[in-house]
Amino acid sequence: MNRPGNQLFDHYFTQEGMREVFSDRGRVQGMLDFEAALARAEASIGAIPAEVVNDIVAACDASLYDFDALAVAIGNAGNSAIPLVKALGRQIASRNEKAERYVHMGATSQDAMDSGLVVQLRSAITLLDRDLEHLADALAQQAQRHAGVPMPGRTWLQQATPITLGAKIAGWLGAITRHRQRLRELKPRLLCLQFGGASGSLAALGEMAFPIAEALARELKLNLPDQPWHTQRDRLVEFASWLGLVAGGLGKIGRDISLMMQTEAGEVFEPAAAGKGGSSTMPHKRNPVGAAVMIGAATRAPGLVATMFSAMPQEHERSLGLWHAEWETLPELCCLVSGSLQQALAVIPGLEVDAGRMRQNLNLTHGLVLAEAVSIALAQRIGRDAAHHLIEHCCRRAVEQGRHLRAVLGDEPEVTAQLSAQALDNLMNPAQSLGQSKRWVKRAVAEHQAFNLR
Amino acid sequence: MNRPGNQLFDHYFTQEGMREVFSDRGRVQGMLDFEAALARAEASIGAIPAEVVNDIVAACDASLYDFDALAVAIGNAGNSAIPLVKALGRQIASRNEKAERYVHMGATSQDAMDSGLVVQLRSAITLLDRDLEHLADALAQQAQRHAGVPMPGRTWLQQATPITLGAKIAGWLGAITRHRQRLRELKPRLLCLQFGGASGSLAALGEMAFPIAEALARELKLNLPDQPWHTQRDRLVEFASWLGLVAGGLGKIGRDISLMMQTEAGEVFEPAAAGKGGSSTMPHKRNPVGAAVMIGAATRAPGLVATMFSAMPQEHERSLGLWHAEWETLPELCCLVSGSLQQALAVIPGLEVDAGRMRQNLNLTHGLVLAEAVSIALAQRIGRDAAHHLIEHCCRRAVEQGRHLRAVLGDEPEVTAQLSAQALDNLMNPAQSLGQSKRWVKRAVAEHQAFNLR
Amino acid sequence: MNRPGNQLFDHYFTQEGMREVFSDRGRVQGMLDFEAALARAEASIGAIPAEVVNDIVAACDASLYDFDALAVAIGNAGNSAIPLVKALGRQIASRNEKAERYVHMGATSQDAMDSGLVVQLRSAITLLDRDLEHLADALAQQAQRHAGVPMPGRTWLQQATPITLGAKIAGWLGAITRHRQRLRELKPRLLCLQFGGASGSLAALGEMAFPIAEALARELKLNLPDQPWHTQRDRLVEFASWLGLVAGGLGKIGRDISLMMQTEAGEVFEPAAAGKGGSSTMPHKRNPVGAAVMIGAATRAPGLVATMFSAMPQEHERSLGLWHAEWETLPELCCLVSGSLQQALAVIPGLEVDAGRMRQNLNLTHGLVLAEAVSIALAQRIGRDAAHHLIEHCCRRAVEQGRHLRAVLGDEPEVTAQLSAQALDNLMNPAQSLGQSKRWVKRAVAEHQAFNLR
Amino acid sequence: MNRPGNQLFDHYFTQEGMREVFSDRGRVQGMLDFEAALARAEASIGAIPAEVVNDIVAACDASLYDFDALAVAIGNAGNSAIPLVKALGRQIASRNEKAERYVHMGATSQDAMDSGLVVQLRSAITLLDRDLEHLADALAQQAQRHAGVPMPGRTWLQQATPITLGAKIAGWLGAITRHRQRLRELKPRLLCLQFGGASGSLAALGEMAFPIAEALARELKLNLPDQPWHTQRDRLVEFASWLGLVAGGLGKIGRDISLMMQTEAGEVFEPAAAGKGGSSTMPHKRNPVGAAVMIGAATRAPGLVATMFSAMPQEHERSLGLWHAEWETLPELCCLVSGSLQQALAVIPGLEVDAGRMRQNLNLTHGLVLAEAVSIALAQRIGRDAAHHLIEHCCRRAVEQGRHLRAVLGDEPEVTAQLSAQALDNLMNPAQSLGQSKRWVKRAVAEHQAFNLR
Repeated sequence: MNRPGNQLFDHYFTQEGMREVFSDRGRVQGMLDFEAALARAEASIGAIPAEVVNDIVAACDASLYDFDALAVAIGNAGNSAIPLVKALGRQIASRNEKAERYVHMGATSQDAMDSGLVVQLRSAITLLDRDLEHLADALAQQAQRHAGVPMPGRTWLQQATPITLGAKIAGWLGAITRHRQRLRELKPRLLCLQFGGASGSLAALGEMAFPIAEALARELKLNLPDQPWHTQRDRLVEFASWLGLVAGGLGKIGRDISLMMQTEAGEVFEPAAAGKGGSSTMPHKRNPVGAAVMIGAATRAPGLVATMFSAMPQEHERSLGLWHAEWETLPELCCLVSGSLQQALAVIPGLEVDAGRMRQNLNLTHGLVLAEAVSIALAQRIGRDAAHHLIEHCCRRAVEQGRHLRAVLGDEPEVTAQLSAQALDNLMNPAQSLGQSKRWVKRAVAEHQAFNLR
Repeated sequence: MNRPGNQLFDHYFTQEGMREVFSDRGRVQGMLDFEAALARAEASIGAIPAEVVNDIVAACDASLYDFDALAVAIGNAGNSAIPLVKALGRQIASRNEKAERYVHMGATSQDAMDSGLVVQLRSAITLLDRDLEHLADALAQQAQRHAGVPMPGRTWLQQATPITLGAKIAGWLGAITRHRQRLRELKPRLLCLQFGGASGSLAALGEMAFPIAEALARELKLNLPDQPWHTQRDRLVEFASWLGLVAGGLGKIGRDISLMMQTEAGEVFEPAAAGKGGSSTMPHKRNPVGAAVMIGAATRAPGLVATMFSAMPQEHERSLGLWHAEWETLPELCCLVSGSLQQALAVIPGLEVDAGRMRQNLNLTHGLVLAEAVSIALAQRIGRDAAHHLIEHCCRRAVEQGRHLRAVLGDEPEVTAQLSAQALDNLMNPAQSLGQSKRWVKRAVAEHQAFNLR
Repeated sequence: MNRPGNQLFDHYFTQEGMREVFSDRGRVQGMLDFEAALARAEASIGAIPAEVVNDIVAACDASLYDFDALAVAIGNAGNSAIPLVKALGRQIASRNEKAERYVHMGATSQDAMDSGLVVQLRSAITLLDRDLEHLADALAQQAQRHAGVPMPGRTWLQQATPITLGAKIAGWLGAITRHRQRLRELKPRLLCLQFGGASGSLAALGEMAFPIAEALARELKLNLPDQPWHTQRDRLVEFASWLGLVAGGLGKIGRDISLMMQTEAGEVFEPAAAGKGGSSTMPHKRNPVGAAVMIGAATRAPGLVATMFSAMPQEHERSLGLWHAEWETLPELCCLVSGSLQQALAVIPGLEVDAGRMRQNLNLTHGLVLAEAVSIALAQRIGRDAAHHLIEHCCRRAVEQGRHLRAVLGDEPEVTAQLSAQALDNLMNPAQSLGQSKRWVKRAVAEHQAFNLR
Repeated sequence: MNRPGNQLFDHYFTQEGMREVFSDRGRVQGMLDFEAALARAEASIGAIPAEVVNDIVAACDASLYDFDALAVAIGNAGNSAIPLVKALGRQIASRNEKAERYVHMGATSQDAMDSGLVVQLRSAITLLDRDLEHLADALAQQAQRHAGVPMPGRTWLQQATPITLGAKIAGWLGAITRHRQRLRELKPRLLCLQFGGASGSLAALGEMAFPIAEALARELKLNLPDQPWHTQRDRLVEFASWLGLVAGGLGKIGRDISLMMQTEAGEVFEPAAAGKGGSSTMPHKRNPVGAAVMIGAATRAPGLVATMFSAMPQEHERSLGLWHAEWETLPELCCLVSGSLQQALAVIPGLEVDAGRMRQNLNLTHGLVLAEAVSIALAQRIGRDAAHHLIEHCCRRAVEQGRHLRAVLGDEPEVTAQLSAQALDNLMNPAQSLGQSKRWVKRAVAEHQAFNLR
């Protein structure tokens, strides 16, 4: 079969290691790992002869199988385990006729597929965990480095009171730390064995069923769940949601960066690299090509996560259609999130910061962004509403006359009756207006470090 | 303003207590709780005069406000806190001109809205927690009651090997127990204060900012997060995902019940109640009206959860539009899940079970559903593939000839050469084929009980 | 029943007329319109006595019914038609015992609910159609007004070659015109009768069934479909998708406006109105409160549309759960889109444009945004790649040295060898670089006008 | 680059022809088709020398390019056109140094990517159109074949009054016919050129811009839109919605088939094929492997469609992130729908129907499903409510006593006072109760045939 590939964007949107985990090879090996472990477990209990194990295990090597032929057979079988187990049987039989009798014993297709998937997910989690840790480290460094660098805060895309770049980055870091906490919590729920046989009762294995299940979980180093979960998919959906959370958190980073990179803002840039982010028609441009992936993944993840949720009400002991809807969706989510992380890791450590431009931007409103402090000081003297209206009025005047707010305030008797010139100067000094920005950085970094120690 | 209501399905789809939590009154009171607590906290630190607190707190009562007027004002303001704080100011001023100066001091609209929301979510969680516990108790009872009642297992909507009704219910219970575990884990992350002022820096409060934040968190009995989270929405989205998981788990229950209630299955029924589930044209019908809500909620939840994910990449220090997208979506999710739970609680304890019909259904295939045991027994003698083909052949013959599989097997020399008549009888006795069904019940119930003790 | 309302954001997010259409009253009246028309149709065929019609019709007035009691009864019935038809029967019986026998004859609950919904949707479409026409008119005016006003084009949020504001607005208009075309096409599919009786066969009406169906469609002025569509929901989902398209198109407008309103861009503003878009902490701010709704609706619509799609595979002749998932979702979509349109209609006609700031912004890159024209001119002389690299180099130099690109180019022998000073001047004059901007405006306006004439 | 493939389920879930259209090769060739046509168009206007065209066109052959290298370069460029155009330039230059200067002239990356995509979509539509026509033909045949075959209607998964299998299939057909109508309507909107240059103004091409655009549209046989649509994506999203509608309609077919295939129903089966739908543990089973794909696609499509909607509010003249979110999503949707169609085409023509089992199932309720007719006849004599209650009572009695409803009715004086024994017999004869079933078939087939003629 000449299989037309569709991988043009793989390198840009996903991480190679993650693609490897969810490649055909990875999927097949996951199922074969299950079959090998099952043979070992059954032999350890005496359910099958010890001497067949080696021949079964030797055949459990993905490189022995023809994925194209498997793909065709899947079309008839309706799942990937039936044809694989058949092919595995043939492989074994070619070595040892007798051993073939003992493969896959007592298991059902979904046992192999789900347990194999969990084995893949374990690898995926290892990659994600590592990347999240590296990203958190990089964010912590950047947050600390820029903890005191003032820039305009922005709400509703309008300039608001000043913050520091470090405080903004600390917000990004905080989310990543919480994602890591969540992953730690859900991991034991997710990484558990699927083993139930035809209808989940393991009836075919008689009295040996439960000991085999225990041994099999040990072999695969997976938790033994309280029961099979062929149609209880909350473990997988919880993980999908987690992936969606990470995608959303990275999307927020991408959005902020792309907004700060705007020609009109020019505060922060993705690191330059030869030929990176160039435009075919505008040679001077440096496009936020990393942010695009982070935003793109955050745009695609919600629909994929929703698919996993939609597929939850699976019928009876095995679903048709809903289960099938998971097969490519969860791997796709893993790959997209890995790709978003890859971009974040490429962007964050080398972030280019133009602190001068930030200072310039802070002055863009001629002091309006510092009106709040004055407003509050006045509120305590003349009441909230009166203060609000007075300052609103002064701001409007400053805008109309193109003057700095400090000057307008100094001319306004209702203001100067309450606040001295020096008080006004202090209130309108940006360097005095960073509030708790540094504290937020310290706290976010402390949480990050505490998590690493745990 | 004459507000056209749209509540015809509220009673059916949602729970009254939850609607109360997310009513206009609930929303306004949440924000007022924040304002009252803020006044208390600021007074406790000495940031505002102690004597104004009572007048502020007295005005923080939702029953004093005109929700229709607020709704109109929200249209101008773009959020609910601005007009409420204005109205609050007027309420306070009418009591104590001076006190008005100290309300909402240092806070921003989103501080009030988000913290108010968290206060509402705490109430919502209390309701959900209670219902989940009750549902888990009911499921545990039913699982135990029917632990040994045989019924057809079904995979791909085809009859498979037998299970027990208890085992099926244990699967439902297991998911609920895991949902409760997840809720316990996410609660401390979710129930935390929002307090950052204009851009998140709390700059307006100067040196007193952090002590006020600490006092405010104490007042509201909320956790103090490592930093404000105005545009880091993972806490809310994590909770939305959890709601989606619960909806999906209940949807699975609803789907199973509706399938078992089919005229052709007739195994399990929603409890009868006068007039419940009647049809306007078919007076004899008893429609699964509870299951319909559970399936309906599981169908609607994914889209709403996806909206929350889509709204994550919020710009800078406060988003426009993405934040707005949350305001009705999360309450709607809470209400839908509460309604689904309400139906589950109405259905599960009174589930009507027709064990006789289950036995009848078990015999529908003339023994075919018990073919697996024979297949496995044969596989150990003649190999997996040969056994599979032989049994497949016998099954096909049984179907074509309309005979019981036991009879066909008894006539087949290739089978009888391997298995004695008694062996065949044993293998094809459904009562012998329940496998680990009872164990799954025990384990699920034990997990449930252990969780309750924790 | 004391029904807690949840309408705080209705005024901001939705349009009052649309809320009216989808109010409880609107829903009940829609079903009653069906019942009245059915009585008339059946009498016209002689299926029921002519003398009962008036009493039936008189009772088909929503103001006669207690919606709270209906809401409770819906909880038992599982749909809204069963209790309404019962209450209707009582109303009729209180006037004319005999007439009661002939109400709802041959119909099923879903006939009343779906046909009633279609009647509501017809009203909704009238509102949407009108608003879209008004919006298109306003956009056409604005596009023409600003057809020649130069501003920076922006790609990847980076400044690119100049466009005109009119061209940007023409893009908004083009989408609206296409939405109107689509609505015209789908309308005859959507506005059709639902009438099938218990299982869709109209069996209960015997030989009179089809003539009654024809008469009923005439009475309701709806199309008669080729068959009932109780579980073929594509008509509704197509409409939901259309709503999603409109939401997305308006979301694009909202996004563009909010970006242009940024403090750092300051090119275009929502019209000012007293108290509109103020901030509780920053009195000078003018938040894009209209754009927020447009973006919010575009963020919420996809999930709701997805719900409608997810609910399509409805079982057999009537679904449980999937059908239920539509009941509130489609009305919610209509309301959200109406609200987004309402904001667009409030914003577009009064758009405040700062053409001076646009000119300023055009100069922000010191000519870099005009590099393309030079690049192309060079490409024809020295080849694409060489030209690209040369210009890229000059741009980089201009940035590093803080000089205008024109000056750098003038100093670069490789450039001046190919292009004269005058050629360079021409290439770098923004007023010469608006390309087809005006043509796009003309074409979009022409399409709009042509549509109106059709 | 060793690219790990992930195609194990391609054969099962998607159609080979469609995968070919959306393969890397298909994507690259689409862009190259644009470039070749652009060169021809520009030469036809005299914008570039006629003699360079051949060398450009000759290089526009996907087989000349290294997709792995492209994939890597895309990671730097942020889109697929930049590196492809570079590679194309090198290809051309190797033939004709001069010709290289004229490639891609005046176009931007997105012009090539979007126009190339539209070219791919045209191929996709051809495939889909053909398959839908074949499916509609097969459905029309089956609907006619089984137009009079009675089976239980089912509402809420409960048996209701009888219908015919043909009527059910006519419902499936009706939806397909409407999908074909929609495709015909949207096609001219979808199949249009993208050509705008850097910011959409085509400024780089000066006076020749519009004639080139016209010539280019002619070359590509695409419509010339009223303006470029780089950030107006409604055309693509409309098509995505249409794909979602088809997926939903096929999902409905899959759901119905899988429910009818249930062991307890056994009315209709997917055609048997050697090894098709077998179970690894239950050799006798015949799983609905085709229906699984149809349901699976209907479960996955909504999330993917939602992604396309979510990506609509694209910023300014070119989006980052939102545009990227489309690149793999729309192809995936096309592939999934093609796969669902492929299964429908495999299943429908060979559908195995067990009319005897249907008759048996019709008798399962001992006449209860025919209660409606009696109820209506009584309603005309004693009133709707009284009739409803009386019949409800008789039905309940029939169930409790395990008797046929006809017998219970015959014993009930309140019934026999109104209806003679013969009247009752007639009312309860299923063959008399098929209503308009055959008419619906005729109408659906007529619509189908009329569409084919148009």
